[in-house]
Amino acid sequence: MQRYKIIIAYDGFEYSGWQVQPGVKTIQGELEKCFHRLTGETVKVHGSGRTDQGVHAAGQVAHVDLPPHLPKGKIIQAANSLLPSAIRLMKVDAVKAAFHARRDAVSKEYRYFIWNAAVLPPCLCRYRTHAYRPLDVAAMQKAAALLTGRHDFSAFTANPKRIVESAVRNLSVLTVRRRGREVVIAARSEGFLYRMVRSLAGFLIRVGQGDLPPAEAKKILSRKLRTAVVPTAPPQGLFLWRVDY
Amino acid sequence: MQRYKIIIAYDGFEYSGWQVQPGVKTIQGELEKCFHRLTGETVKVHGSGRTDQGVHAAGQVAHVDLPPHLPKGKIIQAANSLLPSAIRLMKVDAVKAAFHARRDAVSKEYRYFIWNAAVLPPCLCRYRTHAYRPLDVAAMQKAAALLTGRHDFSAFTANPKRIVESAVRNLSVLTVRRRGREVVIAARSEGFLYRMVRSLAGFLIRVGQGDLPPAEAKKILSRKLRTAVVPTAPPQGLFLWRVDY
Repeated sequence: MQRYKIIIAYDGFEYSGWQVQPGVKTIQGELEKCFHRLTGETVKVHGSGRTDQGVHAAGQVAHVDLPPHLPKGKIIQAANSLLPSAIRLMKVDAVKAAFHARRDAVSKEYRYFIWNAAVLPPCLCRYRTHAYRPLDVAAMQKAAALLTGRHDFSAFTANPKRIVESAVRNLSVLTVRRRGREVVIAARSEGFLYRMVRSLAGFLIRVGQGDLPPAEAKKILSRKLRTAVVPTAPPQGLFLWRVDY
Repeated sequence: MQRYKIIIAYDGFEYSGWQVQPGVKTIQGELEKCFHRLTGETVKVHGSGRTDQGVHAAGQVAHVDLPPHLPKGKIIQAANSLLPSAIRLMKVDAVKAAFHARRDAVSKEYRYFIWNAAVLPPCLCRYRTHAYRPLDVAAMQKAAALLTGRHDFSAFTANPKRIVESAVRNLSVLTVRRRGREVVIAARSEGFLYRMVRSLAGFLIRVGQGDLPPAEAKKILSRKLRTAVVPTAPPQGLFLWRVDY
């Protein structure tokens, strides 16, 4: 068998997240079905991590072991002709058998896209979160600066019971920028807690709307307790942007 | 009653076109349902024209008569909160009772969007037509120039039986330009034949792929007969862009 690193983009809107579950459509499930059709064998697709229902990816990474007789150059084209158009292999690279998409990941970057205007254009409704009140991006940037770095992010996970060992994470990047009517949050870390990016986005949107001052970021962090002050922003604005190795 | 001119954007992917039909979801049907809920009355929505199943709009125009007690400033917000997120009122203007969205339209502009790269990104799959072979835009521009102007477009309609009186139309604009991996066709006329824009796009894509020389445009026009040389490009790349009055 030959191990491949694959980069996958998907529109998660109609899928029940990444991970295979019985009775529902998932990204991993569609990929495994596709590779089964391609090879006639049972192929397990190992992702860098899960994404939730409705969350998208521009650069999810996974590894798969495929029979060596498959010509590498043909894999992308053959897989993309079998996959639903909402899922696409963007890149396929032969890697050493020791490569592991989850364990070898050094950092991940997520991007959260907010449409900040009175009306959300219909063709963006599956891919953007709508904030119709003008967002104060400077205030969001101040709050983001306070959240950047090594902290206990217990207050920014949707389910504290899911915390294994520690909620300390090094958020190496948390930026907010405006591009016209769009406000984009980028978050990079070696690892995220459950729904951490959507919790950070939910908090930053509240700061941008003037509901909370940027300095609240420090107070919330130090409380180490999830409260209603931090909402979980909806999934459709979130993209797993890239995974670095 | 007060007459309003409304500008509507929609994602047509999941709709059976503009026009109300029994038993299926249509754009006009959703709008009429929304205005019925808003006013408690039967409201007819008169569009500038139909769009086919799967075709989108950035600037469809319609007129509606609403009870004068509805505050104009609230109509957009109220309607958009009732409409599915795939349909949005973008603008509402009070107009004279004589205004008619179809009869008063002076010209319409359609845009046809082609994604010209090996892989079509999943989040664009409902809104772009995929052409993976590199398109020769200069050749498409030459062909477009030959089609611009006043001609009998019998060869560029999907159903010649639908031609009423004459197939002569003045195609005042037919341009092709590349924006990175995207190729955009813009077509403007005082009136189009049935599936004329998709037929023009289908022909121009074939020219761009090198299947036909640009000069073929003149020959096809002069034959005044639809043949298999001109395919109808798929609906998902097509947007009714604007209607002028």
